[in-house]
Amino acid sequence: MKLTTEQAKEIKDQQSQENKTKRVTAPELEKILYEAIPILDHGFIRVVDYMGNDTSIVQAARVSYGKGTKKVSTDAGLIKYLMRHWHSTPFEMCEIKYHVKLPIFIARQWIRHRTANVNEYSARYSILDKEFYLPAPENLAAQSQINRQGRGEILEGEQAKKVLELLKSDAEQTYSNYEMMLNERYDGSVIDDKEVGLARELARMNLTLNTYTQWYWKTDLLNLMNFLRLRADHHAQFEIRAYADAMLDTVKRWVPITYEAFLDYRVGGTEVSAKGKSVIQNLIKGEQVSAEQSGLSKREWNELMEVFDLKDRLI
Amino acid sequence: MKLTTEQAKEIKDQQSQENKTKRVTAPELEKILYEAIPILDHGFIRVVDYMGNDTSIVQAARVSYGKGTKKVSTDAGLIKYLMRHWHSTPFEMCEIKYHVKLPIFIARQWIRHRTANVNEYSARYSILDKEFYLPAPENLAAQSQINRQGRGEILEGEQAKKVLELLKSDAEQTYSNYEMMLNERYDGSVIDDKEVGLARELARMNLTLNTYTQWYWKTDLLNLMNFLRLRADHHAQFEIRAYADAMLDTVKRWVPITYEAFLDYRVGGTEVSAKGKSVIQNLIKGEQVSAEQSGLSKREWNELMEVFDLKDRLI
Amino acid sequence: MKLTTEQAKEIKDQQSQENKTKRVTAPELEKILYEAIPILDHGFIRVVDYMGNDTSIVQAARVSYGKGTKKVSTDAGLIKYLMRHWHSTPFEMCEIKYHVKLPIFIARQWIRHRTANVNEYSARYSILDKEFYLPAPENLAAQSQINRQGRGEILEGEQAKKVLELLKSDAEQTYSNYEMMLNERYDGSVIDDKEVGLARELARMNLTLNTYTQWYWKTDLLNLMNFLRLRADHHAQFEIRAYADAMLDTVKRWVPITYEAFLDYRVGGTEVSAKGKSVIQNLIKGEQVSAEQSGLSKREWNELMEVFDLKDRLI
Amino acid sequence: MKLTTEQAKEIKDQQSQENKTKRVTAPELEKILYEAIPILDHGFIRVVDYMGNDTSIVQAARVSYGKGTKKVSTDAGLIKYLMRHWHSTPFEMCEIKYHVKLPIFIARQWIRHRTANVNEYSARYSILDKEFYLPAPENLAAQSQINRQGRGEILEGEQAKKVLELLKSDAEQTYSNYEMMLNERYDGSVIDDKEVGLARELARMNLTLNTYTQWYWKTDLLNLMNFLRLRADHHAQFEIRAYADAMLDTVKRWVPITYEAFLDYRVGGTEVSAKGKSVIQNLIKGEQVSAEQSGLSKREWNELMEVFDLKDRLI
Repeated sequence: MKLTTEQAKEIKDQQSQENKTKRVTAPELEKILYEAIPILDHGFIRVVDYMGNDTSIVQAARVSYGKGTKKVSTDAGLIKYLMRHWHSTPFEMCEIKYHVKLPIFIARQWIRHRTANVNEYSARYSILDKEFYLPAPENLAAQSQINRQGRGEILEGEQAKKVLELLKSDAEQTYSNYEMMLNERYDGSVIDDKEVGLARELARMNLTLNTYTQWYWKTDLLNLMNFLRLRADHHAQFEIRAYADAMLDTVKRWVPITYEAFLDYRVGGTEVSAKGKSVIQNLIKGEQVSAEQSGLSKREWNELMEVFDLKDRLI
Repeated sequence: MKLTTEQAKEIKDQQSQENKTKRVTAPELEKILYEAIPILDHGFIRVVDYMGNDTSIVQAARVSYGKGTKKVSTDAGLIKYLMRHWHSTPFEMCEIKYHVKLPIFIARQWIRHRTANVNEYSARYSILDKEFYLPAPENLAAQSQINRQGRGEILEGEQAKKVLELLKSDAEQTYSNYEMMLNERYDGSVIDDKEVGLARELARMNLTLNTYTQWYWKTDLLNLMNFLRLRADHHAQFEIRAYADAMLDTVKRWVPITYEAFLDYRVGGTEVSAKGKSVIQNLIKGEQVSAEQSGLSKREWNELMEVFDLKDRLI
Repeated sequence: MKLTTEQAKEIKDQQSQENKTKRVTAPELEKILYEAIPILDHGFIRVVDYMGNDTSIVQAARVSYGKGTKKVSTDAGLIKYLMRHWHSTPFEMCEIKYHVKLPIFIARQWIRHRTANVNEYSARYSILDKEFYLPAPENLAAQSQINRQGRGEILEGEQAKKVLELLKSDAEQTYSNYEMMLNERYDGSVIDDKEVGLARELARMNLTLNTYTQWYWKTDLLNLMNFLRLRADHHAQFEIRAYADAMLDTVKRWVPITYEAFLDYRVGGTEVSAKGKSVIQNLIKGEQVSAEQSGLSKREWNELMEVFDLKDRLI
Repeated sequence: MKLTTEQAKEIKDQQSQENKTKRVTAPELEKILYEAIPILDHGFIRVVDYMGNDTSIVQAARVSYGKGTKKVSTDAGLIKYLMRHWHSTPFEMCEIKYHVKLPIFIARQWIRHRTANVNEYSARYSILDKEFYLPAPENLAAQSQINRQGRGEILEGEQAKKVLELLKSDAEQTYSNYEMMLNERYDGSVIDDKEVGLARELARMNLTLNTYTQWYWKTDLLNLMNFLRLRADHHAQFEIRAYADAMLDTVKRWVPITYEAFLDYRVGGTEVSAKGKSVIQNLIKGEQVSAEQSGLSKREWNELMEVFDLKDRLI
């Protein structure tokens, strides 16, 4: 990631603000506010605003719970209780806004989460930056042979080299032709004075899906956790996970108590089906259990054994 | 509206905070932060948190608009442009949270706006306050004879007196029986040591719809304007309009530029149908127009004439 | 539940339709279409329309999965896979619409699910029916002594009798005064020719929360399952559970394969936290485990032991 | 647009269904159900399911309006009234589902409407078709010189030829390298037996934004009208308007009364700001008006004059 001098200066200006407020604050998050945290080769996330902290969750829950809990539970206890019992509305009382730079094919995965507010840089209106994602060698994975939407081994040697070269040269060529069609370069200079350029809203179609775009993305804490639960998971594509991991760190700085509860009850937890529950009950009792009798498919059986660290029972 | 000593102290404590932040602030809104603004006889609204100000809208719009607008338009010009052309997403970048005390029958109207986050005081869990809405004499209106969901003349004399007495005595009696069934008074004292009370989740059903409830209500600026456009309108029921009017003032303090554009393009503006447009065009040209030939219903015709101040053409 | 002659006739008319369509159908659901299924003393649910069936879920998932799965998995296998891995969008492809009659205090719980479409009978515009919920004796429960939002023992003898009498007499009195204030009875007859009535939008505030209201409620299958998971659960208030249970039956008729997967993975399943997982792993290995060392609170420990049927380990 | 033999057969199979239902139907829409209506060079829309018709809107509104309207208004009158007064919930009671094939850069515009349900063909899982959008010569427009997000003149001669060649050759080359990296062709044949292919979730990033994708898209009538109002408008990009126009035809077949009201009050109507209203009032009175005194910007003034057909007053 490289910022232009102007961009770097704008960020510095934002960070040098020192405003007074009666609102609650999140001191650890303030420390990194506006900072561009690099992701992948040219991307970043920046927290550009937030509302509330752990106490806001407690406060909202106590309105809905009235005078009841004030005496008996500490804030952390209440937040854990809410998380455990899937109370959702108190977590909606905190809000965060990110500025994100990301490849278009990742933006297309991301946008499937519909409960956020988004303003994206418009390629109908402006010319996109000349920046495209090229995977680092250690992320250049082959198609998985067992999971149709997963990755297998890392590509090596000549093949890896060839793939990277193709990605690079195709992106550069299509970008160069994008400028040609626009009759304008990214820096605003005109290519041929005697011609008019193709409309931006059309020229953009020539770009490849690894071109970077950027957006403002704002969501509440509940929906952010839903996003992170899916996108920081090992089933998620590596490239979006890179963003999700960095966002997890910002959650830790923002609402540390909620973050702990989220790790315990969501990220590190598991679900067990009715049939799976019965298998576990029998295992604890020391009774015989088998995949056949369990009613579980082979895949389900193995997932259950993995979760409870029973590798010798894999089939 | 009366606050308990404890509530008044809690609000004062919130207001005495002086935190530092790098976030943008809205100084005029900070002045009334946390303050309980009285509405109706026992209700209030309090702004308890907010995110962003007018500059946040511009900032978000410029990401989506890229380098283009920075030079040519001032912030106010851009905000007016966005409002006029129904650009919605930049206005979603600001967020506000209210604490509201309101009668249940108004809460039921309010909740129909589904795009907000809500935490309501739970009468399953706690005992509701002994407070119910009684209209002021000047708001005690008769059923409209021409609009099935509107109000007519103000009731007067004996009838007004009788209605107020009925509302008051029924609310007091049902609340008193609510306590009786709970075997507990609002202050927590037990009524009869030898009995257990009815479950709170059941006892509450005996309360009347003018009993006050309270909630935390959080929404973005776009959806707030949608709410206010409908609820600060003269078609809205007086009691919810009282809340909407007070909220309009908080919008003015929070995002003054957006507020002006909202008044010009939404609140003070109007819509004209295809047929109505044709009538207006003819009127400007000085041509003959009549309700019959216009294709408008009598009601539509009159609405159009009212909007354009042509009272002599009402039919 | 009693229907007027006119209502019964309207339902019969709807049921006698025999239309041709190229859309997919759900034959078991067609059998009860429009039928009013009684709930509580005066309530009902009726399925009034639906879109899609189990095959619609498979079809939508296969667009997003392309040519891949068609050969390898059966429909049921795919639906189970989608449910297990929390794929949400395919289940959004089915839609259902209910007509529901329910007490206002239950409507207020229900409406907290914001993702549905709702049209409620307007008491601003019309006069509400003279019908209010009175619990059957076996549902007249005392406040739980251990759970602030739960029920304890059933009330008996004199106290039960007194509570029912209060509920009944207060509802009747407030309804009678509602008519008095309106100067109009439910059947439309005017009470006193020489007076005008109070506006409907005001008079309604005198009604108690057990008065019945009704609405059209439309939602997709995913959000319906989210609703049912919470509201058919034993933590839910009995009165809303009564509705949820009846709706579960309609889901079974509509999408039987999805229904089975829902029971296995959601209703009958459980979540285990990171700490809980570690406890279960140790139990299976036959190692010593104790509540103290587990990091679980007493409440969490007991919930975990209950789930895995280890009642002798309760503390 | 060309369908494979298999796809054509599947559509034919769907169309040959003749099911019985008690649900309401939309006979004109049934006639084109499942049919692929060609859009652009390779795209299409197909209506694959629907729920409700005009009568469903009336039915839902009357629950919320109770016994009131039944006698006084016809169905069409009520629907017009609802549209004119921005009643939204009754229109949410109808639902429609489309299968759409469209270029990725258009899909990215479309998805900004967040209130719909979407299942998209997954390029993580499957290989995308070798089909990309190339504008017809009459749609190959230059960048507008006056509107940064609009189109100007049509490109002609050599330049047009060159642009089309670049779009075509870049799309073909990047697709060909996509296959190379996958080590697999679209038809499933392996390119080099001794190599493994790059993971699909990575290889897709080499495709250009005019590559076609497809999805199932389901929405309610209210949100569909919001979509069409923006996307069938002349400010919308031509390529998405092509889809919106075809969808308008399906709305006409589905809910003809609502369609008429939509044209009159939304599509053909206009909004007038508070300041604009005052200008029009003066024009009707025959008073002097000028852009300067109006408080309108030049742009706003001209928009207003255009709307009311006062071309001689443009400035």
